[in-house]
Amino acid sequence: MKLSEIAKIIGVDFNGEEREISSMSTLKDADATQLSFVSNSKYIKDIQESHAGAIICDSATQDAVPSGATALVVDNPYWKMAVISAYFAPALEDIDSPKAVVGEGSVISPNATLANGAIVGKNTQIMAGVYVGSNVEIGDNVTLYPNVVIYRDCKIGNSVTIHANSTIGSDGFGFATNQLGEHKKIYQNGNVILEDDIEIGSSTTIDRAVFKSTLLKKGVRIDNLVQIGHNCEIGEYSVFVAQSGSAGSTKLGRNVVVGGQAAFAGHLEVAAFSTFAARSGVTKTIKESGKTFAGFPLMDHRVWLKLQVKLARLIK
Amino acid sequence: MKLSEIAKIIGVDFNGEEREISSMSTLKDADATQLSFVSNSKYIKDIQESHAGAIICDSATQDAVPSGATALVVDNPYWKMAVISAYFAPALEDIDSPKAVVGEGSVISPNATLANGAIVGKNTQIMAGVYVGSNVEIGDNVTLYPNVVIYRDCKIGNSVTIHANSTIGSDGFGFATNQLGEHKKIYQNGNVILEDDIEIGSSTTIDRAVFKSTLLKKGVRIDNLVQIGHNCEIGEYSVFVAQSGSAGSTKLGRNVVVGGQAAFAGHLEVAAFSTFAARSGVTKTIKESGKTFAGFPLMDHRVWLKLQVKLARLIK
Amino acid sequence: MKLSEIAKIIGVDFNGEEREISSMSTLKDADATQLSFVSNSKYIKDIQESHAGAIICDSATQDAVPSGATALVVDNPYWKMAVISAYFAPALEDIDSPKAVVGEGSVISPNATLANGAIVGKNTQIMAGVYVGSNVEIGDNVTLYPNVVIYRDCKIGNSVTIHANSTIGSDGFGFATNQLGEHKKIYQNGNVILEDDIEIGSSTTIDRAVFKSTLLKKGVRIDNLVQIGHNCEIGEYSVFVAQSGSAGSTKLGRNVVVGGQAAFAGHLEVAAFSTFAARSGVTKTIKESGKTFAGFPLMDHRVWLKLQVKLARLIK
Repeated sequence: MKLSEIAKIIGVDFNGEEREISSMSTLKDADATQLSFVSNSKYIKDIQESHAGAIICDSATQDAVPSGATALVVDNPYWKMAVISAYFAPALEDIDSPKAVVGEGSVISPNATLANGAIVGKNTQIMAGVYVGSNVEIGDNVTLYPNVVIYRDCKIGNSVTIHANSTIGSDGFGFATNQLGEHKKIYQNGNVILEDDIEIGSSTTIDRAVFKSTLLKKGVRIDNLVQIGHNCEIGEYSVFVAQSGSAGSTKLGRNVVVGGQAAFAGHLEVAAFSTFAARSGVTKTIKESGKTFAGFPLMDHRVWLKLQVKLARLIK
Repeated sequence: MKLSEIAKIIGVDFNGEEREISSMSTLKDADATQLSFVSNSKYIKDIQESHAGAIICDSATQDAVPSGATALVVDNPYWKMAVISAYFAPALEDIDSPKAVVGEGSVISPNATLANGAIVGKNTQIMAGVYVGSNVEIGDNVTLYPNVVIYRDCKIGNSVTIHANSTIGSDGFGFATNQLGEHKKIYQNGNVILEDDIEIGSSTTIDRAVFKSTLLKKGVRIDNLVQIGHNCEIGEYSVFVAQSGSAGSTKLGRNVVVGGQAAFAGHLEVAAFSTFAARSGVTKTIKESGKTFAGFPLMDHRVWLKLQVKLARLIK
Repeated sequence: MKLSEIAKIIGVDFNGEEREISSMSTLKDADATQLSFVSNSKYIKDIQESHAGAIICDSATQDAVPSGATALVVDNPYWKMAVISAYFAPALEDIDSPKAVVGEGSVISPNATLANGAIVGKNTQIMAGVYVGSNVEIGDNVTLYPNVVIYRDCKIGNSVTIHANSTIGSDGFGFATNQLGEHKKIYQNGNVILEDDIEIGSSTTIDRAVFKSTLLKKGVRIDNLVQIGHNCEIGEYSVFVAQSGSAGSTKLGRNVVVGGQAAFAGHLEVAAFSTFAARSGVTKTIKESGKTFAGFPLMDHRVWLKLQVKLARLIK
């Protein structure tokens, strides 16, 4: 998409250097072919260091845009980013892609749907009612139980099992809101990557990234009815018990254990080998590894036990 | 259905005026062609003012039944209402209705199912495994991702997106319980209405009304794994984050924001522009608009923060 | 499977009496044709009284193995049990079983899938996108709404209704973890049994047992988005409101009422007629029947109300 067209759509007078924009990304990740945006002046440093080809910004941040990037100055950069994100969204299915390819020994139910461009490995079983989207890649020895849905462009490693009615790659929950309280969808043009040896329960939902990938690393175990938000990164062998969840962009180290109904706020980092008791509510980054937590607000598990004793006394 | 037949089914000696009863409704909403019921003497005023054609009541409430209505006096009105509700339930599908009608430019997967009587607008995409029930009306520019289920009689506006494995119009959780502890289903003969420009995540469930409609107004945004109970009304542009929910008959104003895992009890009213932090538990009506809450029991968000400080001191 | 083969797979020098092992079970339930295991020396008494044909144990527990059983002594019995469980797992579908049998008056959608060996009773309705696994038995007057998934070997009684996108019989969340933090799946070779007159909401998940059965007794009512863990037993007429759940092996008596978002830890026993307010967190066995509880940690409901008053004072 031409930069001049983008400028026109978001209502910017464009007289800079024309260039082709391939996609959108964050200030940190964008390269010269990509469009980025800034909606908050606390990201000044990220703007200055960005390699993006163009940046949607407002008058308060435009001076920070580096010389290599074209500044597209608007009143509400976040809203305009949402507007333009629709133009980078692919079709629901790539009708013109070649038919799905299935490896040796794999069994695909006649009642499953493989969209064009999908690639399935060897000795994989895809049961009735499963939907595999365009360009999805599925490894060897995978089992997809009935009615699993894999949205387009996601990647599923080897020896992955996904139980019935789970969804991989639905849109992350992203939108801009204007002063009238109206919402504008931010198209989620990333994907989900599941590495090898992962098991996911039934009716679990793992959202695709807004840019790049939501990532579950090798050996992760996820129970039923769990929510993993867009752009999360779940470390090797981490475990989510039923009805737990994480908001977007949170990164867990390896072997983190998340109890039932526990949850993480977004944009946190959680050290490896952390354990969270059932219904923990995690709103801060955890830097020290190997500790056990409980409660909401979160506290050391032993402190939580102590607090319960104090509260019990309060009642008497 | 004849009133005399209804009387016979619930074991009432009938010698009043015969009339045709078309359906059931609440005391407030019922008209002369409808049957209503009262199970609690605190609704005396609603009985007196009801325009229902007949009212199932007990000996404690029968005197309040107005002259225009026939009183059907029983020992356990709520149980008998449940018994009779089955007789007003439509078939799972209207086999004799005309085949589904699909508007110009719409793409229906060959693996989707449109029941007889369904009407689909223009430029709508219905993907594999989707089920659209009898008499469902779907607008223009709608996207139903794979395996979405829309129960019969529901209405979906224009520019609505529903993600995979979500269910619109499943039965509300309603039953009567007798003194032996047995349950009797109250058939949920209402529907769900989604207005325009709504997005709903994956594996979310929105129950149909027992009578009339569960209503989501224009611009609502619902994340994954959210539960909306029967007869709720969700105001314009309101937002439910993942794993939150509402019990039945709660009414939210516009632009209410509901954090992850937060929940509402039933039969509440919530003022516009209210914000609820993650895991809030709302058990009381909120009259003043524009405030922010947290905790369970619910409190002002600033008070909740103060309480956490006090509790932290308690531990030391 | 021959005992000598099992010994070989888990790396034990075998010179005992050869025997045929049909399946695996717990120390308490196993008979002479079954293999059991012990992973914790606190189960010494269960070992001593076990009727298992063979027991995987370690050096600390091997002396307790009774003379009727062969001790298979390994370093990590739980991990080795997981390894061997894979060998007792049946195929995803029994391709060679006879075609599904459907009783008189039943209506099966052409878009539903009945695996070989399934048996469906009379006047049952199976809607589009439903999957019924091998050897599943379904009674009379059952309604399975679209996209319900019933895994192989489960049993559904008469007059059961299951709403859209729910899953019956997905694998319980079971795995062993070694000292490197890696996980090994424990195959869930049991099933789910639903007795008569049960209703289950949409997007609810009920896991199959690791051995034997997860059991829902007559008259149970389960709302949407509820999780029932493997090997649970839910008493007659018990009620789970939306987004509640139970971890594995918990047993509820009859007419237990579980509020929205409430949850049980595993391996508990809960007395009949117990009531749990919304969001209760139950971590201890409840012996006295007929009481009402709230909070997490759980307390008598009246005490919980009192605690809220005390906390309110704390803030002032």
